[in-house]
Amino acid sequence: MDLESNCLGAQSVFFQNPPSISGHACVVGKKEGEGPLKNSFDYISDDSFFGEKTWEKAENAMVKMAFELALDKASLSPSAVRALFAGDLLNQCTGTSFGLRGASVPFFGVFGACSTMAEGLCLAAMSIDGGFSACSAALTSSHFCSAERQFRLPLEYGGQRTPTAQWTATAAGAVLLSKSGTGPRITHITTGKIVDAGITDANNMGAAMAPAACDTLNAHFHDTGRSPSYYDAVITGDLGHFGHDILAHLAHAEHTSFPNIFTDCGILLYDSKTQDVHAGGSGCGCSAAVLCSYVFQKMLDRTYRSVLFVGTGALLSPTSSLQGESVPGIAHGVLLTSD
Amino acid sequence: MDLESNCLGAQSVFFQNPPSISGHACVVGKKEGEGPLKNSFDYISDDSFFGEKTWEKAENAMVKMAFELALDKASLSPSAVRALFAGDLLNQCTGTSFGLRGASVPFFGVFGACSTMAEGLCLAAMSIDGGFSACSAALTSSHFCSAERQFRLPLEYGGQRTPTAQWTATAAGAVLLSKSGTGPRITHITTGKIVDAGITDANNMGAAMAPAACDTLNAHFHDTGRSPSYYDAVITGDLGHFGHDILAHLAHAEHTSFPNIFTDCGILLYDSKTQDVHAGGSGCGCSAAVLCSYVFQKMLDRTYRSVLFVGTGALLSPTSSLQGESVPGIAHGVLLTSD
Repeated sequence: MDLESNCLGAQSVFFQNPPSISGHACVVGKKEGEGPLKNSFDYISDDSFFGEKTWEKAENAMVKMAFELALDKASLSPSAVRALFAGDLLNQCTGTSFGLRGASVPFFGVFGACSTMAEGLCLAAMSIDGGFSACSAALTSSHFCSAERQFRLPLEYGGQRTPTAQWTATAAGAVLLSKSGTGPRITHITTGKIVDAGITDANNMGAAMAPAACDTLNAHFHDTGRSPSYYDAVITGDLGHFGHDILAHLAHAEHTSFPNIFTDCGILLYDSKTQDVHAGGSGCGCSAAVLCSYVFQKMLDRTYRSVLFVGTGALLSPTSSLQGESVPGIAHGVLLTSD
Repeated sequence: MDLESNCLGAQSVFFQNPPSISGHACVVGKKEGEGPLKNSFDYISDDSFFGEKTWEKAENAMVKMAFELALDKASLSPSAVRALFAGDLLNQCTGTSFGLRGASVPFFGVFGACSTMAEGLCLAAMSIDGGFSACSAALTSSHFCSAERQFRLPLEYGGQRTPTAQWTATAAGAVLLSKSGTGPRITHITTGKIVDAGITDANNMGAAMAPAACDTLNAHFHDTGRSPSYYDAVITGDLGHFGHDILAHLAHAEHTSFPNIFTDCGILLYDSKTQDVHAGGSGCGCSAAVLCSYVFQKMLDRTYRSVLFVGTGALLSPTSSLQGESVPGIAHGVLLTSD
């Protein structure tokens, strides 16, 4: 076999034996469970603490539950999983490491900010197609309360949110990939580059991530030789309403058509008219939960046969913003197809 | 090709076409440059700020410099690198994302705490042997001052360090892997599991990581059918003196012999008698710098022909410790051989 036989263009890969989605689950909080996708989630908790004493431990519990639910739904034991790719936005990714410390599964920690689910799927798919695993998993989480107090202000302060601010989803999603199966398959991935457009407003992450999404989309279309019209849906991670509009503008400037098949998990997760989330949803759990509910359901009922899922991440920290840095973005593309 | 043809036992992988180390570089601070490996580093900075205004920006500068030096030494341009696996210990891995934002290279962020270099090498090797890349890179960094104020106390406070405390290395290392070349090759990897032995002292990370190192070593020896005597050296990441002793004790209990080929990057990096580092070195940069200097030099001059490099990470955060949590550990094994 030619060692580079799976490469396509400068940033994309296609799989000789496209791995199949053999299981998935998502766990969400109360607010997400009141939104437009409320009938699509596996578990909705009315308790923001998920039975734990702190919001960080609640996030650990969500991670554990999402992984166990995905395994249960697929009738698999943890020992079937040979490579688990997971991470989150808490400092040192503790949502993941504490949530999974009892799982006893070979583990690769990843950090892609809100692009983590897409990044994990890229790596999980490569691990299977490369012959390194028969079953791999991608997992991520976020929690509004643990994120808010880590990145912004104590919740008790009741800080006013800007119009461009997004609402960090309380959600965890887990996806199991197998070398065989009848679920949707990952046929291509496009690995993103870090793109820094100079945005310094940490409350406008849609603006910071949109250029990275545009860069990855252009790379994907160039590498595969396809246009957006090939896909039933192109779904970005968490650009939100402002970021989605900016992507439309950038895509137009790049001479890429921007048809109505483009949407965004941050727009889909909440009802913008009634749920007071300002520019939409965000957080690692946002795109993970929408993928594991809305997207996979539409693929399983064949409404969608070809979906380009583009996870988007803002690679900032509170410290980098306080030191005057701009916000680098990244986006990874995952092409899902069902027969 | 059988899709699982590269799997060996429960946690290990062997490569059909073992990727070769085609370039490497390390950049260190003044203290590291005064230690026993002082003649092995590519660049030693007398300025802890590396010409920048903050220690976090200094870490970004180190990351950028290590990557550029590795490329220069290998006579490669950034565009040759199709997949870059990198991360660090700063919140949200900003050492990496800001250090590499100008590189324009397809990027996968990883988080393995101090095991990051080993984790990155595992993923980079899989990306090449799987046919997804002809040249990949693994990169990581740490900085004593950015780590100390993030994880412990303001430096100005002058806090007393405990005897088991380790010294976070100011160092960045970059490794380039290619499908062809004459450098040392990665023939096997063993992916670690999260192991939590219940250690709650965040100042004794050697104790927290030693059980994970032992678990991965046992898996590696079991999966490959080899005993420690097969290797010229077994080099753990940053267990330090106490952790190394604990590993010896655990390995004895597991009926694994513990000969004098076992050593640790945290022991090698500093002179424990004169440099006042207490239990030894730590931080992502510790094992990266020792690998990119001492280890590769001994492999290139054929002192070592077979080295099992086992990066070790403590998956804690200040928040998890404040909430009373124990410290989960992880360790990834990378088998390097030279002809």
